[in-house]
Amino acid sequence: MRPSRRAPDELRPVTLERGVVKYAEGSCLVKFGDTHVLVTATLEDRLPPWLKGQGRGWVTAEYGMLPRATSERTRREASAGKQSGRTVEIQRLIGRSLRTIINLEALGERQITVDCDVLQADGGTRTASITGAWVALADCVNWMKARNMVKANVLRDNVAAISCGIYNGTPVLDLDYAEDSEAQTDANFVMTGDGRIIEVQGTAEREPFTQDELLALMALAQKGIARLVDLQKLAVA
Amino acid sequence: MRPSRRAPDELRPVTLERGVVKYAEGSCLVKFGDTHVLVTATLEDRLPPWLKGQGRGWVTAEYGMLPRATSERTRREASAGKQSGRTVEIQRLIGRSLRTIINLEALGERQITVDCDVLQADGGTRTASITGAWVALADCVNWMKARNMVKANVLRDNVAAISCGIYNGTPVLDLDYAEDSEAQTDANFVMTGDGRIIEVQGTAEREPFTQDELLALMALAQKGIARLVDLQKLAVA
Amino acid sequence: MRPSRRAPDELRPVTLERGVVKYAEGSCLVKFGDTHVLVTATLEDRLPPWLKGQGRGWVTAEYGMLPRATSERTRREASAGKQSGRTVEIQRLIGRSLRTIINLEALGERQITVDCDVLQADGGTRTASITGAWVALADCVNWMKARNMVKANVLRDNVAAISCGIYNGTPVLDLDYAEDSEAQTDANFVMTGDGRIIEVQGTAEREPFTQDELLALMALAQKGIARLVDLQKLAVA
Amino acid sequence: MRPSRRAPDELRPVTLERGVVKYAEGSCLVKFGDTHVLVTATLEDRLPPWLKGQGRGWVTAEYGMLPRATSERTRREASAGKQSGRTVEIQRLIGRSLRTIINLEALGERQITVDCDVLQADGGTRTASITGAWVALADCVNWMKARNMVKANVLRDNVAAISCGIYNGTPVLDLDYAEDSEAQTDANFVMTGDGRIIEVQGTAEREPFTQDELLALMALAQKGIARLVDLQKLAVA
Amino acid sequence: MRPSRRAPDELRPVTLERGVVKYAEGSCLVKFGDTHVLVTATLEDRLPPWLKGQGRGWVTAEYGMLPRATSERTRREASAGKQSGRTVEIQRLIGRSLRTIINLEALGERQITVDCDVLQADGGTRTASITGAWVALADCVNWMKARNMVKANVLRDNVAAISCGIYNGTPVLDLDYAEDSEAQTDANFVMTGDGRIIEVQGTAEREPFTQDELLALMALAQKGIARLVDLQKLAVA
Amino acid sequence: MRPSRRAPDELRPVTLERGVVKYAEGSCLVKFGDTHVLVTATLEDRLPPWLKGQGRGWVTAEYGMLPRATSERTRREASAGKQSGRTVEIQRLIGRSLRTIINLEALGERQITVDCDVLQADGGTRTASITGAWVALADCVNWMKARNMVKANVLRDNVAAISCGIYNGTPVLDLDYAEDSEAQTDANFVMTGDGRIIEVQGTAEREPFTQDELLALMALAQKGIARLVDLQKLAVA
Repeated sequence: MRPSRRAPDELRPVTLERGVVKYAEGSCLVKFGDTHVLVTATLEDRLPPWLKGQGRGWVTAEYGMLPRATSERTRREASAGKQSGRTVEIQRLIGRSLRTIINLEALGERQITVDCDVLQADGGTRTASITGAWVALADCVNWMKARNMVKANVLRDNVAAISCGIYNGTPVLDLDYAEDSEAQTDANFVMTGDGRIIEVQGTAEREPFTQDELLALMALAQKGIARLVDLQKLAVA
Repeated sequence: MRPSRRAPDELRPVTLERGVVKYAEGSCLVKFGDTHVLVTATLEDRLPPWLKGQGRGWVTAEYGMLPRATSERTRREASAGKQSGRTVEIQRLIGRSLRTIINLEALGERQITVDCDVLQADGGTRTASITGAWVALADCVNWMKARNMVKANVLRDNVAAISCGIYNGTPVLDLDYAEDSEAQTDANFVMTGDGRIIEVQGTAEREPFTQDELLALMALAQKGIARLVDLQKLAVA
Repeated sequence: MRPSRRAPDELRPVTLERGVVKYAEGSCLVKFGDTHVLVTATLEDRLPPWLKGQGRGWVTAEYGMLPRATSERTRREASAGKQSGRTVEIQRLIGRSLRTIINLEALGERQITVDCDVLQADGGTRTASITGAWVALADCVNWMKARNMVKANVLRDNVAAISCGIYNGTPVLDLDYAEDSEAQTDANFVMTGDGRIIEVQGTAEREPFTQDELLALMALAQKGIARLVDLQKLAVA
Repeated sequence: MRPSRRAPDELRPVTLERGVVKYAEGSCLVKFGDTHVLVTATLEDRLPPWLKGQGRGWVTAEYGMLPRATSERTRREASAGKQSGRTVEIQRLIGRSLRTIINLEALGERQITVDCDVLQADGGTRTASITGAWVALADCVNWMKARNMVKANVLRDNVAAISCGIYNGTPVLDLDYAEDSEAQTDANFVMTGDGRIIEVQGTAEREPFTQDELLALMALAQKGIARLVDLQKLAVA
Repeated sequence: MRPSRRAPDELRPVTLERGVVKYAEGSCLVKFGDTHVLVTATLEDRLPPWLKGQGRGWVTAEYGMLPRATSERTRREASAGKQSGRTVEIQRLIGRSLRTIINLEALGERQITVDCDVLQADGGTRTASITGAWVALADCVNWMKARNMVKANVLRDNVAAISCGIYNGTPVLDLDYAEDSEAQTDANFVMTGDGRIIEVQGTAEREPFTQDELLALMALAQKGIARLVDLQKLAVA
Repeated sequence: MRPSRRAPDELRPVTLERGVVKYAEGSCLVKFGDTHVLVTATLEDRLPPWLKGQGRGWVTAEYGMLPRATSERTRREASAGKQSGRTVEIQRLIGRSLRTIINLEALGERQITVDCDVLQADGGTRTASITGAWVALADCVNWMKARNMVKANVLRDNVAAISCGIYNGTPVLDLDYAEDSEAQTDANFVMTGDGRIIEVQGTAEREPFTQDELLALMALAQKGIARLVDLQKLAVA
């Protein structure tokens, strides 16, 4: 039995609250149970130098955790003077995932920066970030549409993410921290609205795993992500 | 007339919501109008090296702003690799202000770190931070009392803060961003529950000011801080 | 047809040359075609502070590229003052992969640091690094055995890695740079000698991919890694 | 009685020596007793990027202490790789104070950088810096006038600064280090030649203070600053 | 007798292998006995900002050591976040030495960056670097000539370097690590093909030395460098 | 003729003023003409970690230049966040030079840190620093003797330094900035009171130089340093 008494294929309660920061072109407070992430999307008329003059835009992401988002206080990265390897890894994943479903030509020579700041962490912060980021991004694109800044479709599909793992020998969906720290295997899936894979990252935390185990996790992820995509559609409807 | 149509001596709507982060020993989401700051108080059994073995504790503060807390996105300090001069100045002010009303001997050889993270900024983030920090600190001390960790009174008084300024020639209380960016003179006051001064910082933004003008601002501050202290008492009651 | 005229399931010529640095407890110059990585394994009688006194050892990895390992010169990270996100991501992957097949209790309270320095890069530097690192690690463990420093088996299995991708619509094994920069999908696999998965990282470079495509890549990887493990066994025999 | 046997309203011996660095457009070695600060003013034909093309100039300040300016050696900030929070706070105060009395339009699109380097510290380094900086600035402006680079008046007024504090229950003027480290309350005042306030920073070091105490300190400051302004006028006459 | 049983005026076996990195315009793997340095020369169409528009080019050098090039592992500078003082000193010496024999006008507005990375260190890494760098530089210049990019002679002379020292009271040539760590005096000489001096750096490691001792070391260096220049000519012939 | 109209073997006016910083155990304001360096020697009861418990002390040096010590303002290293390569090179040279004439065993397990801060630079700052550092060091050792902290002789000899160069074809002593920027060859000599060499650094700024030219410079240096040592002896007498 899972610590949270959830069924193996049961998500935590998920909410996607829009418009939570008054300045941002798009924003979303996403909650996967006790994991809370504040996401904003910022539109700017500038580009990384290497992209200028190519008629395409860019989407990038930054990720952070408030120091006491965690059970023990984590050192503030701004005060430490550098971002941890974990932070860098996560923000690169978020940016890559979002770019896959964006039509960068349709965006035009502009950059959208997605900031994901974890207010409270209970496992799955990177997957919650990606799921909420899509909502903030959709609102940012709608903000542009309302101002006739884009013509073609900028958003090509939904994107959402979930973690799965093998906990006490059973594949389970949407690991919380209690499960994550005990899981033998941990895999994060990022998928589109039509069920294709954008990114899969499976890691043997203790024992190597088999291809069959990976497939079992992927089946759970398909189901969970379909549900998250439904929630995203409801949120922006 | 003030942009917000407030009377010269009128605070913005202030709320102090406790217990907003489940892990922290104390926490408070403080709102001064559209300025929103998430404050947590973390208790740790460690001290700065220079303080060890003296039978006293320590209170320190860190301050940050989410990148899109502001009208234009601000660069993330963790990614820039350093905290700005403004950030350093503010977190030193918060720490000093809190230490003045803490009985460090009664705290024992422990450190409380207060993290103030601005989710949305509309002027007065440092004064909102100090005002909310007292609530988080009070809850942290209560958490210790409930576990018999302290005997004597750790909190000696309340502490709250407010900014005042001369806007269009009139002294006004609790500047919002629209006023702050236009004010001739800007002063921050940190005071105790009994109306004494912990810190006063008055700055001529354009024209030097007179002693009489400073006294007018101080009178407004006395009034505003008395109101904030009432709200703090209600919040922890 | 592949730019290198290889068959879809054909590795580049792979060599594993041991003992290339006279000071290191283990070392290996690994070549996957034109990708050349110098790997050393260093044994030290010290541990990260958080691991002390637990009767277990640690294996960690660092990764770097010489500035002109690439077609255009890359800025030297030591001179830039920080490691790039890509570097951090890769060295964390190498470290995690090696730890999975090490018996850390048998290692005792010691640390092995594996340094992977790319002398020439033509795609697949992280997978070549992991494959060569196993050889350096094996020699380091043998060095310890020869001195009666360890009793039980420290190495529990082999570990090797390979990248696969969909190039021009066809799943191919062991991407070189020309293929990597054109591939629609790119996946790195880290596996044990018995064919189980330690890490899988699949990324849609342009278009999301299907589960069937992932399985096709995994089948290629199984085959390639089996061959790499054979070469490792030959090398240390 | 004060450790230096001065009367409560007595300044330390103050000297302002001009032209001490042969390259600088303006320079001043300022001494407040044993506090010695070397100030230079550098004129440059460049501006911070955000100020270009607005027809206005800029004045900025940097502050530093030689490592052995203090009783115990302080770590060199250049070697530590960052400026301390205290340094940043002080140099921001100096820059703000000077800008208030400069006509930036009359200066034209040029920047004056004021460097304040403490050779020996015995309390009051920031107030000595501001007081000496005005002399260096005045000489720099005279250098420009002699070359017909400015037409209108660039310097609108004098600016000088002094610290006051409550020492053993008595308000005293111009704290030296022995007093500063014992004072209950410490306030720095920056004022113009005509007695108006540019900046006031009052801090309760131990006990909060009352409005009356602040007024007593301000009265002392008025008197001391008037004397400093006289000395500035003598120095540049 | 020397630990290596060499005669006092005997070099270690020296080899200069060209073309070892396929991307670089020039490259050389230089070995002085067990000291192995990989040198690349990179040609780029850009210049340091202060040199633009003067019709001249630039040659600069960077130096690094792989962490396990040494008997004990050295911390990776990229991970430490800065280059050591020793590294900076050495790369400045290499750059200065090379520029002396380059006709920067003939090079045109281009920069050649020479990277010297020590794969294995056994004393004399800076002198081996300079000696090998000339070969990489010569190949880079030949690469330009083959493309008609330069007209006049860019290389004005050879440059090579050697260390000498007083070991057990005897002046000896080309110190290895065992000698270097015991030598009373250590001097590095950089000379041209015609025997003139580009740089001499003599250091008393324990006892000051006399002018006669310096002359004895210089005589050895003349002899050794003549031999190195012969080897360079053979290598590029 | 030299720009300063000095004879080829003529030093600039040299003064060595002791006791210029009241806190330091030793201090000296050294002037070589318009080059002014403030040197302090700090005694501390601590050692670098790698030296602890060996019964020996340590002498180290740090070097800095005030931003406007130079004709054009130089960026403050504390604000740039790192020391330049030139600074690092110079402070390593000063430290090495001083250690050669110190009996580290007699010093005991203590560290002396010598800070050399250039107030005004007109060429030869490193040689003025070394020459003045000996005086500060001598006073620091006398401070220890007066407190019976050392028994044997700590200072084994004098140490002084001078630069020489070939200017307009003539070897000259003690280059000022006007000469230094035009010299074909530049050599710094550090010598003991008895005329032996501690360090020689000769650099061809434009054309390689011959052994005879080096010897001519060394002869000038011998003469100049003998004079500097006389001045040191007078200063501490």
